[in-house]
Amino acid sequence: MSNIVGLCGSLRKGSFNRKLLNEAVRLYGRCDYAEILLDLPLYNGDRETEQGRPKEVEDLAAAIKSADAVIVTSPEYNKGISGVLKNALDWISRVPGNVWKDKPVTILSATGGRTGGETAQYMLRHCLTPFGVRVLTSPVVCIASASEQFDQNDHLLSDRYISSVEKLMHNLAQEIELKQLHPAKE
Amino acid sequence: MSNIVGLCGSLRKGSFNRKLLNEAVRLYGRCDYAEILLDLPLYNGDRETEQGRPKEVEDLAAAIKSADAVIVTSPEYNKGISGVLKNALDWISRVPGNVWKDKPVTILSATGGRTGGETAQYMLRHCLTPFGVRVLTSPVVCIASASEQFDQNDHLLSDRYISSVEKLMHNLAQEIELKQLHPAKE
Amino acid sequence: MSNIVGLCGSLRKGSFNRKLLNEAVRLYGRCDYAEILLDLPLYNGDRETEQGRPKEVEDLAAAIKSADAVIVTSPEYNKGISGVLKNALDWISRVPGNVWKDKPVTILSATGGRTGGETAQYMLRHCLTPFGVRVLTSPVVCIASASEQFDQNDHLLSDRYISSVEKLMHNLAQEIELKQLHPAKE
Amino acid sequence: MSNIVGLCGSLRKGSFNRKLLNEAVRLYGRCDYAEILLDLPLYNGDRETEQGRPKEVEDLAAAIKSADAVIVTSPEYNKGISGVLKNALDWISRVPGNVWKDKPVTILSATGGRTGGETAQYMLRHCLTPFGVRVLTSPVVCIASASEQFDQNDHLLSDRYISSVEKLMHNLAQEIELKQLHPAKE
Repeated sequence: MSNIVGLCGSLRKGSFNRKLLNEAVRLYGRCDYAEILLDLPLYNGDRETEQGRPKEVEDLAAAIKSADAVIVTSPEYNKGISGVLKNALDWISRVPGNVWKDKPVTILSATGGRTGGETAQYMLRHCLTPFGVRVLTSPVVCIASASEQFDQNDHLLSDRYISSVEKLMHNLAQEIELKQLHPAKE
Repeated sequence: MSNIVGLCGSLRKGSFNRKLLNEAVRLYGRCDYAEILLDLPLYNGDRETEQGRPKEVEDLAAAIKSADAVIVTSPEYNKGISGVLKNALDWISRVPGNVWKDKPVTILSATGGRTGGETAQYMLRHCLTPFGVRVLTSPVVCIASASEQFDQNDHLLSDRYISSVEKLMHNLAQEIELKQLHPAKE
Repeated sequence: MSNIVGLCGSLRKGSFNRKLLNEAVRLYGRCDYAEILLDLPLYNGDRETEQGRPKEVEDLAAAIKSADAVIVTSPEYNKGISGVLKNALDWISRVPGNVWKDKPVTILSATGGRTGGETAQYMLRHCLTPFGVRVLTSPVVCIASASEQFDQNDHLLSDRYISSVEKLMHNLAQEIELKQLHPAKE
Repeated sequence: MSNIVGLCGSLRKGSFNRKLLNEAVRLYGRCDYAEILLDLPLYNGDRETEQGRPKEVEDLAAAIKSADAVIVTSPEYNKGISGVLKNALDWISRVPGNVWKDKPVTILSATGGRTGGETAQYMLRHCLTPFGVRVLTSPVVCIASASEQFDQNDHLLSDRYISSVEKLMHNLAQEIELKQLHPAKE
């Protein structure tokens, strides 16, 4: 059974991107899942030198390392990813050994506006590049007008969006399987 | 006398980007200057709803609003700007009235590597775009091999870099003057 | 009377972005205007060495140089600007003296889809940065569902879009005036 | 034996990026290789409607489709990819069926300056995203000071660069093998 970690760029409990993350996991199907909240201290090199990395960072890195795949959802703040999410990436990069090299990672986004966070998604792809993760690129899932897209159970309403998320999760499952059959050789 | 605010994307006291910020101010010449430390809480919509914006955010926004110009220096973390800096931009965007619309803003960066943070600088330009600030674009100042570029007094050693920073600061001074002669009409 | 040059990233005669360019000029009001078609040879360093720059490139550069401002409209091809437009920028950069340094430039885009070319616009801002032009950044004009936005006379139908374009053109006029009052000193 | 197609963003015969492309192929080892020159007409929707796609475009698309992998090298023109390369991507996107969906693609760049084209490489990743290709992300190969990096036989001189290219080609070979063992299911 796949072991999946979820990261959400918003700290707001009722965030559309948290709902979207949960929907992605539900539509993935049976898996072992945990969201790791990105409520970390701001990265500060002095703090790192004096006190080491915070336990939350080590836990986050360990969870990513042992996961089969990571699903990241991202709000769009001022046409970019959130500082919350970038700060988490900054910390992860400080943990020795690049914990998610070659890891299958998929990205989804939801926004109140008409673009569904497309521009932020491109920034997120950019920001993930130095980690050498395997970002799944299709289909693109950008949920627009997010306030109208979830029902009372926080399930997606639109067949089109559901179908896109399902397809993306199907591709993620394939990628995980491939990775398990043929782990990267050094 | 110009009133200038400095923002540094690194929280580390001895950061090259803090040194660079200080050098930019020194080479600007006589001005009223304050750096505002970006040591803010992570942006969290629930927190904002329940407790309002933190005092540090209001202070930061007020300082920017009353400044004639803002100088931003940015490290490059994983080929992007720091989460620290993006988080500050996220908070600033929450303060009503867009406090730095049309404000002259200039960007510089320093990194240990060979590119001087060029890629992060492009991301920073992108991230500043929604604010409608006036980003000064030339000359580009990307300090490479930063560990070898500052003397014991934290002054830049290279004539070429000094000359670039001086030119950029000269352009900033011109832009401030222009803005004062002709404030934007609504 | 302002002297304005228009560039369109699409070569298609009936392109939405050509219509948008014409609308921008109409809503600018009285001005001396010419569109320069970007139907240039592909940039080729060998050709440049052997035959020099083509006459069309010299004409384009001269038109930009003598203009008070440049309006660029861009389609979005595969989430970026067109090769047509990038190729024109490549050629312009080969003409000595940076013909549009400090020139006021404004960007608009139109696409058939829901985002109006926002992602391509960010790429265009990036691509204009090395030229040190003064890109006007607000308001952002991204015309979505472009096939429904123009009437039989190729005028914009939506009051909201018309108002955005008018505001942008108003800001452009202000920028031109400012530039004329205070030409950049070297 | 792998069937590899090479694309170079420069049309100049002696381009550093063409040398780099050839070196990548040499260091890949035994393979069936062809470079397709990107000397295409500028994309023009009217021309496409009236005359259809040019034969060179169809040939390019067919070569990509039947290849096991594509190697792209890109110069950096004004901090972006060349118009030549973007124009080729624009044409490829017009050929029905997305000819390089899921295709292993790798990127390298060389420039005369100190960054080796890093910023252009990020733009190229962005531009390849809509095609859903599998871009190999590590190691990053950005050849700086390119005029000093090739010997009389156009071979790379630096052991460090050779080793990076070899590693990247090794990873590409692995990816091709993986793809052949497990072709994507629809």
